[in-house]
Amino acid sequence: MSELSQSLSEKILQGDKRALARLLTRIENNDASAESILSELYANVGRAYRIGMTGPPGAGKSTLTNKLTRHLRLAGEKVAIIAVDPTSPFTGGALLGDRVRMSDVMLDEGVFIRSMATRGSLGGLAKKATEVADVLDAAGYTTIIFETVGVGQSELDVVHAADTTVVALVPESGDAIQAMKAGLMEIADVFVMNKADRQDADKAVQALSASLELRQHSAQSWLPRVVKTVATMGQGIAELLQAINAHRAFLETDARLTERRRERQQNFVQSVVEEKWRQAFWTAQRMEELRKRVIQHESPYKIAEALLQKHS
Amino acid sequence: MSELSQSLSEKILQGDKRALARLLTRIENNDASAESILSELYANVGRAYRIGMTGPPGAGKSTLTNKLTRHLRLAGEKVAIIAVDPTSPFTGGALLGDRVRMSDVMLDEGVFIRSMATRGSLGGLAKKATEVADVLDAAGYTTIIFETVGVGQSELDVVHAADTTVVALVPESGDAIQAMKAGLMEIADVFVMNKADRQDADKAVQALSASLELRQHSAQSWLPRVVKTVATMGQGIAELLQAINAHRAFLETDARLTERRRERQQNFVQSVVEEKWRQAFWTAQRMEELRKRVIQHESPYKIAEALLQKHS
Repeated sequence: MSELSQSLSEKILQGDKRALARLLTRIENNDASAESILSELYANVGRAYRIGMTGPPGAGKSTLTNKLTRHLRLAGEKVAIIAVDPTSPFTGGALLGDRVRMSDVMLDEGVFIRSMATRGSLGGLAKKATEVADVLDAAGYTTIIFETVGVGQSELDVVHAADTTVVALVPESGDAIQAMKAGLMEIADVFVMNKADRQDADKAVQALSASLELRQHSAQSWLPRVVKTVATMGQGIAELLQAINAHRAFLETDARLTERRRERQQNFVQSVVEEKWRQAFWTAQRMEELRKRVIQHESPYKIAEALLQKHS
Repeated sequence: MSELSQSLSEKILQGDKRALARLLTRIENNDASAESILSELYANVGRAYRIGMTGPPGAGKSTLTNKLTRHLRLAGEKVAIIAVDPTSPFTGGALLGDRVRMSDVMLDEGVFIRSMATRGSLGGLAKKATEVADVLDAAGYTTIIFETVGVGQSELDVVHAADTTVVALVPESGDAIQAMKAGLMEIADVFVMNKADRQDADKAVQALSASLELRQHSAQSWLPRVVKTVATMGQGIAELLQAINAHRAFLETDARLTERRRERQQNFVQSVVEEKWRQAFWTAQRMEELRKRVIQHESPYKIAEALLQKHS
């Protein structure tokens, strides 16, 4: 443990945003020094409530996150937003005429926004997102929102890092069906029907509610709530926060939240173990042997066995 | 190698569809006997051309796949479709009033359709999809199409299994922008602007083409083609097939296809190695130690090191 890293973790615990940003960059860059600092901070991890915001593209997730953050601020929360999106409006990424939507929450001292790129980090993203959230948790942010881009491989993984998962939909045709296809129905604790001022919004809400009630429920299980919002106008955001808090209260009964977090933490440690092993195993020598055997058109299973046998 | 498994692989090489279906089910169920049969078949793997069909929900991927299959059949190809979607129209999965779209290709002897569920198979899906494709390749199907649901974690992985990746879009607002966000732009070899009879289709194609031309290109790189289709009417499908064949011809120059497939195969063997290791490592005893240490709120990195130290 270096003096430098000690002081970095101390600074983070004292709320130093620049120290915070520096550690997050190290995490994103797979800097070896990040791990010991994360270990130092770990005693302070576990206080923040974690919300996942996901849904198909165009559902208004960024706007919902923005407005929800304002409400949380008014309730006295310190809010950190982890936008898993290379072109997040929060970072001002402008693409193909995508408007730079400047947000008042960016100017708020009690809000910390971090954008994480999805490209080129297949698989490792969920682990990094959890590490970033752990640091923000230790730094004293009381609510952490994961906002995903809505399409891509790591989306469901990232949502598994949340205590309450919000799935945003719009009334347009087939959105709910597509959500079911994508497995979003199973992960949602709260549904938002955003752009609820559009035609057919009530019909879409009814169809969604009907399909939710069809599923098996018991007194021990949570029936996902459906909230109508018009995020651009700020409508329905208080109700969304109420629904999130109701789910939180549900989880806090009978130690469900503790159990859920333990399971999550076990999965996280498993991913840490597997990444450490992977890094140690795939030496240049083994990669070369792999390459040669592939060129010889050997069966993948025989190659795998040969490589693992030399290991043990 | 049992007599039974020998005869199963022989039957598959002779084109027996029931034997084929049986092996695919074993693969999906993680049946231990599948691996030795896959090894036996491996000498016959590598002849089929593999096409990935992806894009956002509602872009008409199923219809495109269906029509493309008909054209490939007329060109004398034997076609296998791997629909990575729990509610694929090919399997007649009806959900929330989703119409069962019966397809004439289902009745064609030269077409084999297999649906793979995405739910509950986080991570392992890409590996299984490759194994299913390898079996179909060995069984004599000359073109294999991976069709993804368009939202979810394994989508990009599955597409990495393809020689040519087709990304389907519709002219609607923001679709291309969302595709860029989701990383679909980088993986596309051919773009389809489907439902091209809609208003603004030409504008959407122009915007897409313009953004493609902005990217850096050299004589050695492939400039993705953009094809307009109205899949429900069968319009533009011949042009889509031409674009796919042009990309194939490009890959077959200068051994690019061989090199791409070798890289793919290396990645696949790596995933086989890692899964074998994972299965061997996470014994009930290690899981119990993991659980206990998590309850004690130990740092994830210290737990990981402790578990790995006992291993080596």
